Amino acid sequence: MNKTLIGSAAAIGLAFAGAAFAQSSMPAPTYAADGKMIQPKDYRTWVYLTTGFDMAYAEGAANQTHSFDNVFVNRQAYDGFLKTGVWPDKTVMVLEVRGTGGENPLNKKGEFQGEVRGMEVHVKDASKGGWAFYAFGKDNAPAAALPRTAACYTCHQDHGAVDTTFVQFYPTLRGKMPAGARE
Amino acid sequence: MNKTLIGSAAAIGLAFAGAAFAQSSMPAPTYAADGKMIQPKDYRTWVYLTTGFDMAYAEGAANQTHSFDNVFVNRQAYDGFLKTGVWPDKTVMVLEVRGTGGENPLNKKGEFQGEVRGMEVHVKDASKGGWAFYAFGKDNAPAAALPRTAACYTCHQDHGAVDTTFVQFYPTLRGKMPAGARE
Repeated sequence: MNKTLIGSAAAIGLAFAGAAFAQSSMPAPTYAADGKMIQPKDYRTWVYLTTGFDMAYAEGAANQTHSFDNVFVNRQAYDGFLKTGVWPDKTVMVLEVRGTGGENPLNKKGEFQGEVRGMEVHVKDASKGGWAFYAFGKDNAPAAALPRTAACYTCHQDHGAVDTTFVQFYPTLRGKMPAGARE
Repeated sequence: MNKTLIGSAAAIGLAFAGAAFAQSSMPAPTYAADGKMIQPKDYRTWVYLTTGFDMAYAEGAANQTHSFDNVFVNRQAYDGFLKTGVWPDKTVMVLEVRGTGGENPLNKKGEFQGEVRGMEVHVKDASKGGWAFYAFGKDNAPAAALPRTAACYTCHQDHGAVDTTFVQFYPTLRGKMPAGARE
């Protein structure tokens, strides 16, 4: 092997190391100078957890239109949960809400996914006092944490199977819940 | 920095390089000695494309029960498609079919995902003559390619927006389709 090849191999090794670091080791939540959370940009390449269709936690909820809820979590947190059954600090769970795709000449029944309607993010960050919720609007602007009095905190506290999260709805993680977790 | 630290850093560098290689650079389809495809094991950490709910391409199709169809693609192929609008060789698309999760005390409406019911895989591999479909059963055993006369080939040929794939149903890729692709 000559020096040029060795040099190339080293450069490729460094590039790989950089990519791996970005994917698996960088803390995921980032904040603006005013403390607002910056909307995660690359969550679609994180680990997919599940999709709900028209789900509602309130009795008598009436959906105006169909909706899909896709849930993603950063890879570092997913790997940590698989190992320990606990969400590590800096866990970021993204709930991406999408409408349906409407009519399509091929699809004769059921629904496929359309555009993003909204996004809610659940972040475990000890530097911010633990779990917090953020709701991002269509402008994708940084968002302040929702106030602790918001209904999402109470509902997740009362019904989340593990650590205020709805692991009971995540099919690949349900089997990893600690003994005694609620269903 | 002493030699021990240097040694550790090198080992970590190698570990990162290995992870990155596995995630982004290793050709995805693997085959048994008899040519059957080995079922992808880690597709849930690939890139998620979309979920359909009760979709059907045939007129009058009657679902006995609700179902979710989750689609994943290997990261190398996803990155290639984003850059070029073409699926590269060794693209592996996994269609994971899941039932619904049934009753849950929290969920009052709609459906969440249950267990895997089946898996179909669409692979572009020049060494195997181009695109081929594989259906994996509950035994997860290696599968032979479905015969070219199977209906999936004709339907994907006739209705796939891009290169016999249903990119028209993948919301993050719809906008990357070449001009003139069918909807």
